[in-house]
Amino acid sequence: MRIVNVPLGHRSYAIKVGGGLLSRLGAECAPLKLGRRCAVITDSNVSKHFSKAALKSLSASGFQPVLITVPAGEKSKRIAMVEKCYDQLAAHRLERKSFIVALGGGVVGDLAGFVAATYLRGISFVQVPTTLLAQVDSSVGGKTGVNLRAGKNLVGAFYQPQLVLCDLDALKTLPKREYISGLAEIIKYGIICDAILFAQLERNLPKLLQRDTATLAAVIARCCEIKADVVGQDETENGLRAILNFGHTIGHAIENSSGYGKFLHGEAIAIGQVAAAKLSHEILGLSSHDVARIEKLFAQVGLPVKIKLSVAQREKLFAAMKLDKKVSDGEIKFVLAKKIGKVEFGCKVPVETIERVLNGG
Amino acid sequence: MRIVNVPLGHRSYAIKVGGGLLSRLGAECAPLKLGRRCAVITDSNVSKHFSKAALKSLSASGFQPVLITVPAGEKSKRIAMVEKCYDQLAAHRLERKSFIVALGGGVVGDLAGFVAATYLRGISFVQVPTTLLAQVDSSVGGKTGVNLRAGKNLVGAFYQPQLVLCDLDALKTLPKREYISGLAEIIKYGIICDAILFAQLERNLPKLLQRDTATLAAVIARCCEIKADVVGQDETENGLRAILNFGHTIGHAIENSSGYGKFLHGEAIAIGQVAAAKLSHEILGLSSHDVARIEKLFAQVGLPVKIKLSVAQREKLFAAMKLDKKVSDGEIKFVLAKKIGKVEFGCKVPVETIERVLNGG
Repeated sequence: MRIVNVPLGHRSYAIKVGGGLLSRLGAECAPLKLGRRCAVITDSNVSKHFSKAALKSLSASGFQPVLITVPAGEKSKRIAMVEKCYDQLAAHRLERKSFIVALGGGVVGDLAGFVAATYLRGISFVQVPTTLLAQVDSSVGGKTGVNLRAGKNLVGAFYQPQLVLCDLDALKTLPKREYISGLAEIIKYGIICDAILFAQLERNLPKLLQRDTATLAAVIARCCEIKADVVGQDETENGLRAILNFGHTIGHAIENSSGYGKFLHGEAIAIGQVAAAKLSHEILGLSSHDVARIEKLFAQVGLPVKIKLSVAQREKLFAAMKLDKKVSDGEIKFVLAKKIGKVEFGCKVPVETIERVLNGG
Repeated sequence: MRIVNVPLGHRSYAIKVGGGLLSRLGAECAPLKLGRRCAVITDSNVSKHFSKAALKSLSASGFQPVLITVPAGEKSKRIAMVEKCYDQLAAHRLERKSFIVALGGGVVGDLAGFVAATYLRGISFVQVPTTLLAQVDSSVGGKTGVNLRAGKNLVGAFYQPQLVLCDLDALKTLPKREYISGLAEIIKYGIICDAILFAQLERNLPKLLQRDTATLAAVIARCCEIKADVVGQDETENGLRAILNFGHTIGHAIENSSGYGKFLHGEAIAIGQVAAAKLSHEILGLSSHDVARIEKLFAQVGLPVKIKLSVAQREKLFAAMKLDKKVSDGEIKFVLAKKIGKVEFGCKVPVETIERVLNGG
């Protein structure tokens, strides 16, 4: 088992990465000084595979868990579902010392984290991410959120878990499309912070695609380390943390303007990252060679690298981009790369340049 | 103008108490380095009196305010209303640097504060409390919240404003019943922390009931000072802050079990405080003389000091008490007084004693 520490003073916590961790959930929670009552929030897909093991492990360690299952999919990340969870927590009489276990992918983690952040003005929570995307990204760093009709993650809280358990065995049941989507965030860490990781991904791609446990353990732990380091320096996204959004300005706009669910998050940000690489070439002088390596790696993984848009779709996409949280006083700012492993944030990009790049020019 | 500072490190802020402050709202916000776009959240009653002045003052200082009006009353403190506010903020394109002004009483402050705490994972907000209760209590200290069907304030966040403006002129339009309700919290500060304040209230009651500006300025500033001091020592209610809940365990249960709106908050906690004083006599040896002074002051102010309950109502009340956030591992804990000006928190009280006291025994 690999352990990554997220250094946030008295709110520091550990990310544990390894096989068989779900069956140790109760034992791992026991030293955290939490109350006995807890709620496992999961979705209808994940529940089939893992909720039994989670409840069993918690009960065996003396906890009293209740299971809350929401429908699988992004549509559960909305206020009405948050309220349903609250009502169930109240019915089960969860108290201030009680805690929530988020068992599932990014949707469950974001939803359950927001519920934990706001129920009784905040109770403890433990993340048990079961998708690759959630293990390397959404479960780490304390961002929680739900969507509004107007956009993705427009509501939320910065709220840190007490513990993150990344069980590598959970990845074995992941549908191929979802697994590959998760690789988009992994490649991102290479681009923004770690040229060596990027080169390793290029080299070890076959093993990664085969879900080789040793390769996954090393890669996931390294990604968590990078994220923990960035979050430790800038918890509430006042500066540096923005680099984690490489490819996300366009990516979120694609997700939003095409209707949630058409593109998986990883697919949308793969397109967004390739576009951001091209913008980086024009604005920061990222070499054509690096742009080509980036585009090639995403393509080899099996992720989309461009999007075809009608005029109406393009307008919708730009409207979505302008509502993004990363907009400040109406200007669209990007994270752009100088070279693989080094990025800058707050780069202003003219709208024409964005349009040209999205048109493939 | 009196200024009270709330010492919370980089989240410190000022409470300003005086006449004519609403017309200075824009000027007071100007030095806070906030974005230009803002939303004034208010209710249908308060809006009639004050929203025009608030918007005018903000516009005059270069801000671009939008007005969001919710129906007056506790019923607006619910998740569906929170979502309506989010949608309006998104429609008005509020960004991370934008801010919210909470213009109104406790309901508006709690609702708008929760919206500010969670929209875009938190934007700035300014409290302009227009009721006595909000000026001395809910606007100070960073507690925000909304109700669930299961209970009051079961959802919320600890989230500090950037500024609190208590305009004493706003109190002139307050209905008598509401004004008197606010006095219940003021008396509370005397009981929990300041025997001199309590004696002043006994002495200056006629002036206070006449809403004399000089008397109000001194009393409100002193209450804010006490609350700021307590909150500065314990922001997230891990210990000391509990003393602010003197009278609230029973008070909240009365509000909840009798249906929101039957008793005003101040009326419910007046009954709760008199009951807590009687419990204090039994458990901590509070003198009969102090119990009598407390009961007399509430009665002289015009607040209820006891409640008549049927068996069914009593059962409902106890059920509500057990769901309170101050319950820990199923035990009901109270804040009790040793003498006027000195309280202890975390006092366990047998259920029979609570029943006897509520029965007037």
